[in-house]
Amino acid sequence: MSAVPQPENEVDPTLEADVFSRNCSSREILQNVTSRWGLLALVALLDGELRFNALRRRVDGVSERMLSVTLQSLERDGYVHREMLQAIPPRVEYSLTDMGRAVAPQLRGLIDLVEGQVPAVSEARGEYDAR
Amino acid sequence: MSAVPQPENEVDPTLEADVFSRNCSSREILQNVTSRWGLLALVALLDGELRFNALRRRVDGVSERMLSVTLQSLERDGYVHREMLQAIPPRVEYSLTDMGRAVAPQLRGLIDLVEGQVPAVSEARGEYDAR
Repeated sequence: MSAVPQPENEVDPTLEADVFSRNCSSREILQNVTSRWGLLALVALLDGELRFNALRRRVDGVSERMLSVTLQSLERDGYVHREMLQAIPPRVEYSLTDMGRAVAPQLRGLIDLVEGQVPAVSEARGEYDAR
Repeated sequence: MSAVPQPENEVDPTLEADVFSRNCSSREILQNVTSRWGLLALVALLDGELRFNALRRRVDGVSERMLSVTLQSLERDGYVHREMLQAIPPRVEYSLTDMGRAVAPQLRGLIDLVEGQVPAVSEARGEYDAR
């Protein structure tokens, strides 16, 4: 995206997205999918659709409010589909869209990598702090 | 990691890391590598070592202070190596460690994906906002 400030949500199709450019909208999108809760919600939904409370249990530690805000922003960006089911009481189910299914495995790969690095990071921190 | 709170930087080697568990230290590490500036700094260093000011120019929009804090945390976690070069004036160069070189391509892949999704996200936002 160009370095010239642009109105929000407007994309000049003649320009390539460049996350290193401060005004590129890809930067904000990247932040939504890699946010503390956005990343975990997307990966949790890789296993299939989930109702709000089930998703909240899976993403351990998230508040109702933060999960709600996170899902709304992922829905707005087209990564998550929100379905109101006709039932008594009414139920809401969340699932990944095609775009969500494209990005979530990449995030899952990142999580797998970082989970495997925990002991090495812990060692590095110990050495750094002992300097 | 276990759901039992543990002292910072201590890892119980009998437990597998699980980023979905609120007290797992992998969550904090993940946040450092996916932070707004951490992610961009790691990917920028994929092309080779950079001096502080060159890195700051590459990561367009980052303040001196934020880049410094970001690099310090990546260095502490063992992703980035900081080298003081004997020169007049003294120079500091940053490069990826082996661990940094393991995680940065995964982040680069995520960036490539998201950059390609910018037009679709823009369209999704338009539809969402028009509801």
